[in-house]
Amino acid sequence: MAGPSLTIFFLGLLFFCAISEASKCSVKGLPEVRNISALPQNNYGRGGLAHTTVAGSLLHGLNEVEVWLQTFSPGSGTPIHRHSCEEVFVVLKGSGTLYLAPNSHEKSPGKPQEFSVFANSTFHIPVNDAHQVRNTNEHEDLQVLVVISRPPVKVFIYEDWFVPHTAAKLKFPYYWDEECLEVEPPPKDEL
Amino acid sequence: MAGPSLTIFFLGLLFFCAISEASKCSVKGLPEVRNISALPQNNYGRGGLAHTTVAGSLLHGLNEVEVWLQTFSPGSGTPIHRHSCEEVFVVLKGSGTLYLAPNSHEKSPGKPQEFSVFANSTFHIPVNDAHQVRNTNEHEDLQVLVVISRPPVKVFIYEDWFVPHTAAKLKFPYYWDEECLEVEPPPKDEL
Repeated sequence: MAGPSLTIFFLGLLFFCAISEASKCSVKGLPEVRNISALPQNNYGRGGLAHTTVAGSLLHGLNEVEVWLQTFSPGSGTPIHRHSCEEVFVVLKGSGTLYLAPNSHEKSPGKPQEFSVFANSTFHIPVNDAHQVRNTNEHEDLQVLVVISRPPVKVFIYEDWFVPHTAAKLKFPYYWDEECLEVEPPPKDEL
Repeated sequence: MAGPSLTIFFLGLLFFCAISEASKCSVKGLPEVRNISALPQNNYGRGGLAHTTVAGSLLHGLNEVEVWLQTFSPGSGTPIHRHSCEEVFVVLKGSGTLYLAPNSHEKSPGKPQEFSVFANSTFHIPVNDAHQVRNTNEHEDLQVLVVISRPPVKVFIYEDWFVPHTAAKLKFPYYWDEECLEVEPPPKDEL
């Protein structure tokens, strides 16, 4: 006798989960003005990171720019990576180091140049230049606002600075885009 | 006897001015990391505005995004305007009102919707929607970080919300781009 009720219960649960997933990744019904503190924040399995997509392609329907708020605890940072979009950083709090290897015409990035970054500073990364931003200040968090063009971002990650450009590993969708880009379109024969 | 000396003096002055103008609008030799507080700030003749181009197309060589820091004193704001690019606002300080008329398919913007904006909030303007941001808080400044795509921005300004879209006035180059877009190429027959 419990068979049909259980089936209905699980079908209902499945429907509820499908609706929740759709609304998390849907831009419909979003408030026009959003409180950044109330937006989802996650480390996406990366120690020391707190990432919030402030204005996103998948989450908020933007097509040409995307804005992130990121906090790196002391010692943490981005991977060494490149992407074929422009990127602007605005440092809100703390300090750290930008490593930049503007050698996309060489075989590998090679030894990067190092630049100190600090609260109320800005810098940008030219398209396809390998780079890394790290919180090299052991006493306080580094908080940055990041702007990219051409979202969602497609990132090529290097194990170290001497990995050939051709051997950098593509990570797409990137960490914070995985959830919404994983949603598969329904099969064509679905009613 | 003073003729040739004066001529040389004025030619020298002209040369110096030309060099200054070129370097102000040239991206060559820019430091990789820039202190935002040390960047030029101006009101461009608009009362209550303080504008800084944090990362710009003409000033810093960006092609796909541009970032501005803007402070509006109580009562001041942007004109009613539209542009065919995306725009994201991040409110850093203060509060105000966003007026948004998402009626680009109608004859004129019409009465806008009103949204309260506040410190640590974000909102974005869809391409071509007429809008205005005003500091409607009489007690403190409104400070925003603004991101646009497709720089340099081409702005269509409306005298009021009922001006037909076709009668909005193009302002290009926009206030902060005038200086660098006004530089004429040298005449072809110049040595």
